[in-house]
Amino acid sequence: MFSTSVSILRWQSAKVAEAIADELAVEEPLEIRVNGRSVAVTMRTPGYDRELAAGFLFTEGVIRSADDLLDLLVCRDLPDGQQGNIIDAQVRRELAIDFDRLTRHVFGTSSCGLCGKATLDSVFQSTPPVDSDATFDPAVVTTLPRRIQAMQPGFDSTGGLHASALFNNEGQLRVIREDVGRHNALDKVIGHALLAGDMNKSPLRDTMLLVSGRVSFELVQKALVAGIPLIAGIGAPSSLAVECAQRGGQTLVGFLRADRMNVYAGAKRLGLAAMAELEGVP
Amino acid sequence: MFSTSVSILRWQSAKVAEAIADELAVEEPLEIRVNGRSVAVTMRTPGYDRELAAGFLFTEGVIRSADDLLDLLVCRDLPDGQQGNIIDAQVRRELAIDFDRLTRHVFGTSSCGLCGKATLDSVFQSTPPVDSDATFDPAVVTTLPRRIQAMQPGFDSTGGLHASALFNNEGQLRVIREDVGRHNALDKVIGHALLAGDMNKSPLRDTMLLVSGRVSFELVQKALVAGIPLIAGIGAPSSLAVECAQRGGQTLVGFLRADRMNVYAGAKRLGLAAMAELEGVP
Repeated sequence: MFSTSVSILRWQSAKVAEAIADELAVEEPLEIRVNGRSVAVTMRTPGYDRELAAGFLFTEGVIRSADDLLDLLVCRDLPDGQQGNIIDAQVRRELAIDFDRLTRHVFGTSSCGLCGKATLDSVFQSTPPVDSDATFDPAVVTTLPRRIQAMQPGFDSTGGLHASALFNNEGQLRVIREDVGRHNALDKVIGHALLAGDMNKSPLRDTMLLVSGRVSFELVQKALVAGIPLIAGIGAPSSLAVECAQRGGQTLVGFLRADRMNVYAGAKRLGLAAMAELEGVP
Repeated sequence: MFSTSVSILRWQSAKVAEAIADELAVEEPLEIRVNGRSVAVTMRTPGYDRELAAGFLFTEGVIRSADDLLDLLVCRDLPDGQQGNIIDAQVRRELAIDFDRLTRHVFGTSSCGLCGKATLDSVFQSTPPVDSDATFDPAVVTTLPRRIQAMQPGFDSTGGLHASALFNNEGQLRVIREDVGRHNALDKVIGHALLAGDMNKSPLRDTMLLVSGRVSFELVQKALVAGIPLIAGIGAPSSLAVECAQRGGQTLVGFLRADRMNVYAGAKRLGLAAMAELEGVP
């Protein structure tokens, strides 16, 4: 499901090319509909599509809870090879859905005022800062990459998948998902929590999120909407990702390794507050 | 411009945390307008925005040549920190622009039939296969990563940027661009060629494209629209990327290293046709 086999040529300077079998990460479009109306097409790795749709609708602000989601219908009445690539979310009719904003991927403002700040303002208009006094042990955070090493079958076979994983504050894995799109992997993780009822009973206030690559604004924003207090990436964060985390009271870690990490925001949750204050780190 | 300095905490298990200065890749939204109408917002690294807009409009099929583009107006009359984040492309009024398709990011079809094949069909409806009989020496292709090693100032300082680079068939660099978004880096490279007039006089028929990461469908599709006969990635290609390259007569290389590479499509251009035929590689 994650991968598909193909025959390829491997060329090496030292010897003649050889034909080998290779595994490719599967990439297929998924069309997401809301009450029958098409709102997005995302290029994703098939599997966990209900989680992906639920997570997408939640992080995009269409639904606020699992209760808003009445049903997820996967369209199966399709020719071979096309099955399951359309999913129709039935949501409560009373929800005020801004279809234009959703489908147009364009900010609502028509005035000349588009900047990082305006983007952040639009995020925080609808999303409150993280409401969590959870703390995390840096020594536990550094163990997270190791904990998912054996759990990325898609990446291991193809080298072409991103992973997102959610842990509790003791470092126990709650869920991991892989996808060709990093935002999809995260939406699947959040959708899993939503569909499992985790968002209702005990929100994600005591969880840590690990992403396999770089940390973009989009990932921080989605984690913020889900109320996740700590996001850590193996790679580098962007400027807007850091600003968003700082403003949202979220802890942002980058370049996470087995023995070290960089803390870009929210050092307080890692017990490094006094130090951070001294040095002027937000 | 590529990067911005911040103060962060570096935590290491062996010692107490230390405050250090760090460079972040800059991520800011760019709103692209066509004749005053907003069509897209992309999160990009500022710089070469005219190239980005031109490349985006070309690879999205809005314009077919540099002649279709009358002017690119960068909006500068904005408060501090917001300047230059809106660009308005003046295009020939006679162009038939499907604003709905552009802005909605949703396929036109309302019927149940969305799959990788439908996606490829929609690409090839508007884009002919690559028209090039250029050949490339595998020994030259493997030198490409080395040739840009010293030319990624953004990545070197931040670790957070993707690169796209265009070479002639002898391996000489024509242009390299970096961006937080890999599709933006490619649009900038293609936009550069378009604005420099390269697409008119001699299209990109004898060029090789190197991308720093994985090779997605989107990147192959954009390269195909630009008529680039060879695309090589340091990372893995996806299944749909390979299908798209095969169908478009494009050579696709993955896992490119100094002494080896995997050939996923178009082995003929690398002089490996006989071998490929023997082994059933497309």
